[in-house]
Amino acid sequence: MLSKHVHQWIQLHREEGTRLLQSMVRIPSTQGNEQEVQVLIADKLRGMGLDVDWWEPDGEVLEAHPFFYSPRSRFAGSPNVVGVMKGSGGGRSIILNGHMDVVPEGTREQWRDDPYSGKVENGKLFGRGATDMKGGVVSSLLAVEAIRGLGIKLKGDVIVQSVIEEESGGAGTLATILKGYKADAALIPEPTNLRIFPKQQGSMWFRIEVTGRSAHGGTRYEGVSAIEKSMAVVQHIRELEELRNARVVDPLYAHNPIPIPINIGVIQGGNWPSSVPDTVKLEGRMGVAPEEKLEEAKEEMIRWMERLAEKDPWFEEHPAAVEWFGARWVPGSVDPEHALMGILGQQYREVRREEPVIEASPWGTDGGLLTLLGETPCIVFGPGLTHVAHYPNEHIVLDHMFEAAEMIALTLIHWCGLDGTEVLNDEPASE
Amino acid sequence: MLSKHVHQWIQLHREEGTRLLQSMVRIPSTQGNEQEVQVLIADKLRGMGLDVDWWEPDGEVLEAHPFFYSPRSRFAGSPNVVGVMKGSGGGRSIILNGHMDVVPEGTREQWRDDPYSGKVENGKLFGRGATDMKGGVVSSLLAVEAIRGLGIKLKGDVIVQSVIEEESGGAGTLATILKGYKADAALIPEPTNLRIFPKQQGSMWFRIEVTGRSAHGGTRYEGVSAIEKSMAVVQHIRELEELRNARVVDPLYAHNPIPIPINIGVIQGGNWPSSVPDTVKLEGRMGVAPEEKLEEAKEEMIRWMERLAEKDPWFEEHPAAVEWFGARWVPGSVDPEHALMGILGQQYREVRREEPVIEASPWGTDGGLLTLLGETPCIVFGPGLTHVAHYPNEHIVLDHMFEAAEMIALTLIHWCGLDGTEVLNDEPASE
Repeated sequence: MLSKHVHQWIQLHREEGTRLLQSMVRIPSTQGNEQEVQVLIADKLRGMGLDVDWWEPDGEVLEAHPFFYSPRSRFAGSPNVVGVMKGSGGGRSIILNGHMDVVPEGTREQWRDDPYSGKVENGKLFGRGATDMKGGVVSSLLAVEAIRGLGIKLKGDVIVQSVIEEESGGAGTLATILKGYKADAALIPEPTNLRIFPKQQGSMWFRIEVTGRSAHGGTRYEGVSAIEKSMAVVQHIRELEELRNARVVDPLYAHNPIPIPINIGVIQGGNWPSSVPDTVKLEGRMGVAPEEKLEEAKEEMIRWMERLAEKDPWFEEHPAAVEWFGARWVPGSVDPEHALMGILGQQYREVRREEPVIEASPWGTDGGLLTLLGETPCIVFGPGLTHVAHYPNEHIVLDHMFEAAEMIALTLIHWCGLDGTEVLNDEPASE
Repeated sequence: MLSKHVHQWIQLHREEGTRLLQSMVRIPSTQGNEQEVQVLIADKLRGMGLDVDWWEPDGEVLEAHPFFYSPRSRFAGSPNVVGVMKGSGGGRSIILNGHMDVVPEGTREQWRDDPYSGKVENGKLFGRGATDMKGGVVSSLLAVEAIRGLGIKLKGDVIVQSVIEEESGGAGTLATILKGYKADAALIPEPTNLRIFPKQQGSMWFRIEVTGRSAHGGTRYEGVSAIEKSMAVVQHIRELEELRNARVVDPLYAHNPIPIPINIGVIQGGNWPSSVPDTVKLEGRMGVAPEEKLEEAKEEMIRWMERLAEKDPWFEEHPAAVEWFGARWVPGSVDPEHALMGILGQQYREVRREEPVIEASPWGTDGGLLTLLGETPCIVFGPGLTHVAHYPNEHIVLDHMFEAAEMIALTLIHWCGLDGTEVLNDEPASE
């Protein structure tokens, strides 16, 4: 059976795969520092015989696009890399997308080892980016390499994308779309704990300024505390969250207590212990349902905040206005009955001998852009551990990385189609 | 009548007094920059024939004292100035205390003119420090000068203190006490709108760290929001405030809706819109009743915060611990029947032809230190406008400054006692 060969190939290349991930993790590819790891990826793709496209996105072109967001607008030294494995024709194409940017390591004291150690311990590889999502990219690379190594010929194209800027709003993937890359489907091996996400939540960042009136703390009754007013605002937002989530009936969210949360992540107000604070700033993230439009969600929140005045007349003259700023991830939705879902699920059963968990993702990825803007239905599925992404002591279970590699390789074969020139004896159809 | 002479003398010296205040306001004597204005005060005191004591407080000595607080411990270039007008003997002594440090001007855009303009318009003099409390110090200086100018001899000593550091916790006045200055009573012309405060609120700054548990905003239900927990803390503090104020039955607080408020002035938590914040810092000011001990108030708050766990078990494992930091003003209480109260009240009626308002102050001054530590019962009474202190466009009504000067001069005469060698014809006893 072909699946057996793929399994064996991957098992024989565990050490190589581990070393590859180690090399990638040891390069701290935070925003603006992606070039070195991209050189490594481009070399790897060339080594496998793929045609490699290497370019630094044009900030001016990106900035003109409504879906662009990044805190920067110059991408010199921050290249995208795309490798194309041309099929023989007649098959379905697929994009394997993954990002090379990692979030900063944060306080080094919270890490047991160097944040970029790449240390292997008890079957886990540690370091910033190991789970989010260099490990997933290694799965994709190993999958393609296995197909090359086994001499398997595919009908459809496989397009491997190693992009920048996912963590900051998706400008790297946006640049691939604007450059014309598209396919019949896409897979992003973001850290899903090997769950399959045909739908993903979008999100937007908001800022709310709450106004009070200053006074000396000794006569605080002469002022109006913006901290106390901000509590009414937080409570009001909680009610909006309830309202919005009551509408979510998608069974993919059945096990999710709050499918589209509104998170308040930052609060800041006042500057003197003995003064009544006259402003409080709240910053947060509004989850957007997979089928919802960003504009509709914005509108709902703006209208809702206007209704604060019904609860407290203070807000009539001092509205808590919403501002949208910073990052924004487009939601995405692929029909759970989509052909790629069936194929991927089948390979999952083949490799893991158990039923896959199919859910909607609680966070956004570049998959929203691919699905909505790139017209390339995208599924998110990968080996990383969701709960350690962005955290100290981030790590990946290496077994999962190799299992994912196997599943992705088999998915490519079934999705893109085996060419007639089969080099192995087994027919995949007999599986 | 002597009071008529005093009135006339003050009226004749309005221009000189205005110019003096102008010169003082034009020197931005924020913390660390008090020397220039102290040179001016010392010259003025010497010009009036007073013995002048000029010294830079010794930080090491101060730091060893339990009542010391300042963000700094070195006072080079920040002198205290004390001028003593010796009485002929047999009378009561008095300290006229005032501070030369001013709070920073803040955002210059909020000021109509330069914050240190000293501009006079419609009988008001503008600039940082005009009200808090250089204007009050001018009242004291004019009072002493009028007595000198009119050739009046007093029995008791008048000790004029121009101190640093009132705005930062009272280290200047503490240094005068440690140097041995004391008297039978004291008056501080802080901005009370000409109300008489025999009692004053003390206060202490506190900081509370509220703990949550971080998580990605898209799965916020996996975390615990320190912002939401901080609201429970704020609510809990409100209840403590209610409880403490219900106990205040002093008639001097009859017109004060919250005699000893607990103000929360600063809130700060989280650093990323899409993350559940794991800490929130609250900073505030706890008012302390005139007869209350600082340590008792501290203890009550600490015990109260421990009871948070009764409302929410989260706080059992994650207590919202109270830390005391920064500034602290000792409360002060003088019997409303104290002799100086009677004398000052009488001069108020004499000058303003109306009943004085006698209240307890809603904020602390150096008077707490003088009363409690310096064993010098201190009354706070001055011409500045409470509501413009620490604010942009701070100003003083010049008429009030001269009225206060008159009242203080007459108070000195009645408190310290007229020496037999009366130079004017009128007997004050005949008033």
